[in-house]
Amino acid sequence: MRTQVVIIGSGPSGLLLGQLLGKAGIDTVILDRVSNAHILSRVRAGVLEEGTVGLLDKAGVGARMHREGLLHEGFSLAFDGRDHRIDLFDLTGGKRVMVYGQTELTLDLIEQRERDGRVTIYDAGNVALAGFDGPNPYVTYEKDGVTYRIDCDFIAGCDGFHGASRKAVPEGAIKTFERVYPFGWLGILAEVPPVNHELIYANHPRGFALCSMRSPTRSRYYVQCSLDDTVDMWSDDRFWDELRRRLPAHHAEALTTGPSFEKSIAPLRSFVAEPMRFGRLFLVGDAAHIVPPTGAKGLNLAASDVHYLFEGLLQHYQERSNAGIDHYSDTALRRVWKAVRFSWSMTTLLHRFPDTGDFGQKIQEAELDYLTQSRSASTAMAENYIGLPY
Amino acid sequence: MRTQVVIIGSGPSGLLLGQLLGKAGIDTVILDRVSNAHILSRVRAGVLEEGTVGLLDKAGVGARMHREGLLHEGFSLAFDGRDHRIDLFDLTGGKRVMVYGQTELTLDLIEQRERDGRVTIYDAGNVALAGFDGPNPYVTYEKDGVTYRIDCDFIAGCDGFHGASRKAVPEGAIKTFERVYPFGWLGILAEVPPVNHELIYANHPRGFALCSMRSPTRSRYYVQCSLDDTVDMWSDDRFWDELRRRLPAHHAEALTTGPSFEKSIAPLRSFVAEPMRFGRLFLVGDAAHIVPPTGAKGLNLAASDVHYLFEGLLQHYQERSNAGIDHYSDTALRRVWKAVRFSWSMTTLLHRFPDTGDFGQKIQEAELDYLTQSRSASTAMAENYIGLPY
Repeated sequence: MRTQVVIIGSGPSGLLLGQLLGKAGIDTVILDRVSNAHILSRVRAGVLEEGTVGLLDKAGVGARMHREGLLHEGFSLAFDGRDHRIDLFDLTGGKRVMVYGQTELTLDLIEQRERDGRVTIYDAGNVALAGFDGPNPYVTYEKDGVTYRIDCDFIAGCDGFHGASRKAVPEGAIKTFERVYPFGWLGILAEVPPVNHELIYANHPRGFALCSMRSPTRSRYYVQCSLDDTVDMWSDDRFWDELRRRLPAHHAEALTTGPSFEKSIAPLRSFVAEPMRFGRLFLVGDAAHIVPPTGAKGLNLAASDVHYLFEGLLQHYQERSNAGIDHYSDTALRRVWKAVRFSWSMTTLLHRFPDTGDFGQKIQEAELDYLTQSRSASTAMAENYIGLPY
Repeated sequence: MRTQVVIIGSGPSGLLLGQLLGKAGIDTVILDRVSNAHILSRVRAGVLEEGTVGLLDKAGVGARMHREGLLHEGFSLAFDGRDHRIDLFDLTGGKRVMVYGQTELTLDLIEQRERDGRVTIYDAGNVALAGFDGPNPYVTYEKDGVTYRIDCDFIAGCDGFHGASRKAVPEGAIKTFERVYPFGWLGILAEVPPVNHELIYANHPRGFALCSMRSPTRSRYYVQCSLDDTVDMWSDDRFWDELRRRLPAHHAEALTTGPSFEKSIAPLRSFVAEPMRFGRLFLVGDAAHIVPPTGAKGLNLAASDVHYLFEGLLQHYQERSNAGIDHYSDTALRRVWKAVRFSWSMTTLLHRFPDTGDFGQKIQEAELDYLTQSRSASTAMAENYIGLPY
């Protein structure tokens, strides 16, 4: 088999890249080691920057998102019993974010790809990337006991942190940067109306909390927890009690509780692999970088990688120029590092750190106090939250 | 002897407070354990916020500063071989800082106090504060073998981090917050023209550097060094070589070198003691808080404490209201913590930290990259640098 671009990974970044390329007449095959049922079972972030929304529209998959997604014009910073609204719309000259679950987005992309009759191969075993350091890259995989090979012009590694793509790069050709945070997020999904119509990011002496949502009737809540904790240590009652303690009183009193139907603990990590291009292999999204979820940058950063790579491939095929793909890594990384910095800084501002002590806590309070009074500092936070320009 | 306010410490904050109170008809005695020659031998920071300049004018001691001081409308952030100017004047709607050495300022204050015939007692031994938890505070000291006592209404502790004032507070009544940084600043003074007409703050893989000045012919330069270093390990030649390495090429080439006439190593520390009032004793400036010199906030923070305390004492004597002195600690601390945060953040942004590794360095570069492109982030830095409002 032969195609122009093999995309490894059928999460949102791989599907979005495939959709953009397909609409531009560039042929792709998407390979995934798991089934689409598995992919759709992942519960992930749901705050989309305008740039991401624009890309989804450009890919022709934005219709349901615009119908069902929630446009948010601000969020709350809760601390010291107070509640301060960051007015994104006002501070950024009219920009918003879109709250729309990653699962829904992925479903839209899968359905569109099926309608367009483009090839996705699920349950592909032993995916292996080869030849990308020369002019003839190819990918092999196994399915139902048979080994297949796909020859291509380029490979896009969209298969996440644990995927095969980054691992295919020879050691020594890649430099990694990492920070592992000394806590996790315990998250639940519950069929209850959200406590607030916008997100609440709470800094509390007991730890961080986040009130988020998937829809007007489905809430997504998080509390900072110990990395030693396990889900079975957290009954629903214990979770709701802890969440209430970390919120300002008026929110705690307004909180509607109910049985959770999903509960999980996630560690927090910052990770960047450089460069993001190796010959004819490009790393995209989580395959190259991970951010802690504070600030909701993970999916949006994958989308901006897709944007840069799509534009580069378009130049290659339509204008016979390699400038875009030659600059892909530098261009993408410059934006990646700014989002990594922002996610690190939001995480540092809002969580309890066991190692910084009382001084660290006072610095957080001073920064929150300053933020709420300074329009320029609020604007800096807002412009990062809605997404820096491509 | 009796006076209205005993001021412990004849550094700039004690002298400034004494001058403001004196002009308002409130009687003070200043006590210092050392001589004024010793005080004038200290080499300290010299970047004054507009608020500090305004206070010095109000105290009637600004004439020479306005003649000889240098008004700066910006500074440079140097990193990655580049040089980015923070345009303070433009970003803050027309504000500047005044470069005028603390030694000169202290001299102006001493001379004015002498002209006004106000009492300063130097070489006062065994200074002890008493009775400040009740209505009749007093201070005792020894001089030439005789013990003296001064009764007063209030005591202002302006005697720095190592002074007697904070130590006079019973343990348990005071809470301290501290961060000690894992490096020091090696500073020199030299009779050479400054390499740039404005300050240069440099982030470099070898460590931080700062190019500052006292006058158009006298330069003050610093390089980040190890806490294990001693001055005799740093010849002038080694210092100049190291400074050149940490500057962008065009500055390194323009650097005029010459023999140093002062060279010292200072550790960096963030420290805050809460509260800043104990009955009729008030802590002011370094007696209550220390900031690392990055950002030049130490003297300016002492000045804002003086402002709040002066206004409070004025209300007490002129309006018979204790509102100002009752709120002194809370009001002063709120601004103190913002400056402590800013100084910590400038320090964190610009120095090499042995414990954050490559990830920390990349985060710094991303923040500097973002700062140079974002007007709101530049404005936030500028508004802190020129000084938050009182």
